[in-house]
Amino acid sequence: MSEDAFAKTPKPPYYAVIFSAQRNGHGEADYNVAGERMFALVQQQPGFLGVESTRDEHGFGITVAYFDSEENIRRWRNHEQHAATRERGKREWYEHFEVRVARVERAYAGP
Amino acid sequence: MSEDAFAKTPKPPYYAVIFSAQRNGHGEADYNVAGERMFALVQQQPGFLGVESTRDEHGFGITVAYFDSEENIRRWRNHEQHAATRERGKREWYEHFEVRVARVERAYAGP
Repeated sequence: MSEDAFAKTPKPPYYAVIFSAQRNGHGEADYNVAGERMFALVQQQPGFLGVESTRDEHGFGITVAYFDSEENIRRWRNHEQHAATRERGKREWYEHFEVRVARVERAYAGP
Repeated sequence: MSEDAFAKTPKPPYYAVIFSAQRNGHGEADYNVAGERMFALVQQQPGFLGVESTRDEHGFGITVAYFDSEENIRRWRNHEQHAATRERGKREWYEHFEVRVARVERAYAGP
């Protein structure tokens, strides 16, 4: 695979929203459509720096979205379509999820 | 699936090491053995709080390890077996990886 899956983030500091989630196995088609919509939408948001996302065959996924500031994380959180999709996710798609907002202090790449 | 895949982290602040990596497709058996060894070892480290990890069918994975402090992240980074395994990973297993060390400021769970 290429390096397309990696976020091209700037030099720290910046912010990470770490979203880990267990899917409940229902509504896969709707879930994928909504995911693609949110992916297109988040890229238009102020301060959005990139996203990395993966999910295994058991439906356990981790998505990390990067932003330049806490203010722009809040703005994205309050975005009407994002908020509606999150509510749908809570009702329909997730068995459990954890959200952690973190300030990236240092970063490096390899090999 | 159960909630076993989730790290049981305390109230913030604490630290996250976000490791995103693209496997090169080689040495899957060795890689899995090494991964299990590192998983067993990290749980014995001072200040280790938990880990979440997932990888998709294209070999793109995200692992987030949680620690109580930067000092204990450094200690784990300098652990002899961990350092040796990281070097092996760079030589043998990864096409590309990114490491980001971040301070978790707030967290919540759902639904």
